[in-house]
Amino acid sequence: MLHTTINDYLRQYIRTVPDWPAPGVQFRDITPLLQDPKVFRVLIDAFVHRYMDPELRPDVVAGLDARGFILGAVVAYELNVGFVPIRKKGKLPFTTVEETYELEYGSATVELHADAVKPGDRVLLIDDLIATGGTMMAGKKLLEKLGAQVIEGAAIVDLPELGGSDRLRESKLPLYTLVDFAGH
Amino acid sequence: MLHTTINDYLRQYIRTVPDWPAPGVQFRDITPLLQDPKVFRVLIDAFVHRYMDPELRPDVVAGLDARGFILGAVVAYELNVGFVPIRKKGKLPFTTVEETYELEYGSATVELHADAVKPGDRVLLIDDLIATGGTMMAGKKLLEKLGAQVIEGAAIVDLPELGGSDRLRESKLPLYTLVDFAGH
Repeated sequence: MLHTTINDYLRQYIRTVPDWPAPGVQFRDITPLLQDPKVFRVLIDAFVHRYMDPELRPDVVAGLDARGFILGAVVAYELNVGFVPIRKKGKLPFTTVEETYELEYGSATVELHADAVKPGDRVLLIDDLIATGGTMMAGKKLLEKLGAQVIEGAAIVDLPELGGSDRLRESKLPLYTLVDFAGH
Repeated sequence: MLHTTINDYLRQYIRTVPDWPAPGVQFRDITPLLQDPKVFRVLIDAFVHRYMDPELRPDVVAGLDARGFILGAVVAYELNVGFVPIRKKGKLPFTTVEETYELEYGSATVELHADAVKPGDRVLLIDDLIATGGTMMAGKKLLEKLGAQVIEGAAIVDLPELGGSDRLRESKLPLYTLVDFAGH
């Protein structure tokens, strides 16, 4: 990391896969970041150092299914707080709250266990990437249904041209991302 | 954890959900273990302390989609090694190897990025629970296709009556689990 920003350092380990999952899409694959022990540590610590700050320290970290589990669980462990998963519909066994959101074609539903957070809990919401922002917005609504306060949304990658990060900020959700990619 | 074993300590935080996902099944829900900061730390550290041992220390931790991501990522970070995800078919964007296995009704396929591990890598394979052992066996085969050696399979829960842990041990995969449940 000598003589470079964290944005530039991490960017070189993000793999662009052309035409996946559909023609014309440039998929940003974060798995190489996880695979190298040093890069993985730099990545996680960028989040941990931010959320150790008493003003931003959450009571709970919520991770979005499934790459958000990878980041969220480590950040929660390092901050000594609990981790709760937000999952695609049909994966959580106990009583849940659910939220449906629009996709380009059709819709998706995510769920959260009804006892995952308590009213007043300050929650950090984590995913790997912000594209249209639909999943993160749905996650925020789920946590708010249970009376929790989402203090920030965090992700490795922002694809600002897809408008998700703007929409999330307009909904009063502060965001923290490490690498921006133009195009998608 | 005073005056108790880790088995008994963790067991009290595992929630049994009756008749989920199908009538007659007692689902063992590990999410309460993750939600309590102390229990989450005791859980993770049980794995970390074992795999810090030079004889068992892996080069890479592989996590099984999706609850295995939660445990595997934290253990990898704490051991200062890389993390690689083994995913349900269609989720990994780059070149993969794949393995199909039988389920009670039908079959399932899992994938691993072809560059996720190197020949000779010593890999720790992690999931939340061992039932029939099908997913963990498929994960082992994927890693072996790439020339890696799976040194151990680890999980929070074993359901020994379903025979998975016996079958995995017969296939020469050592196992480490923290809580056994009779019945399922």
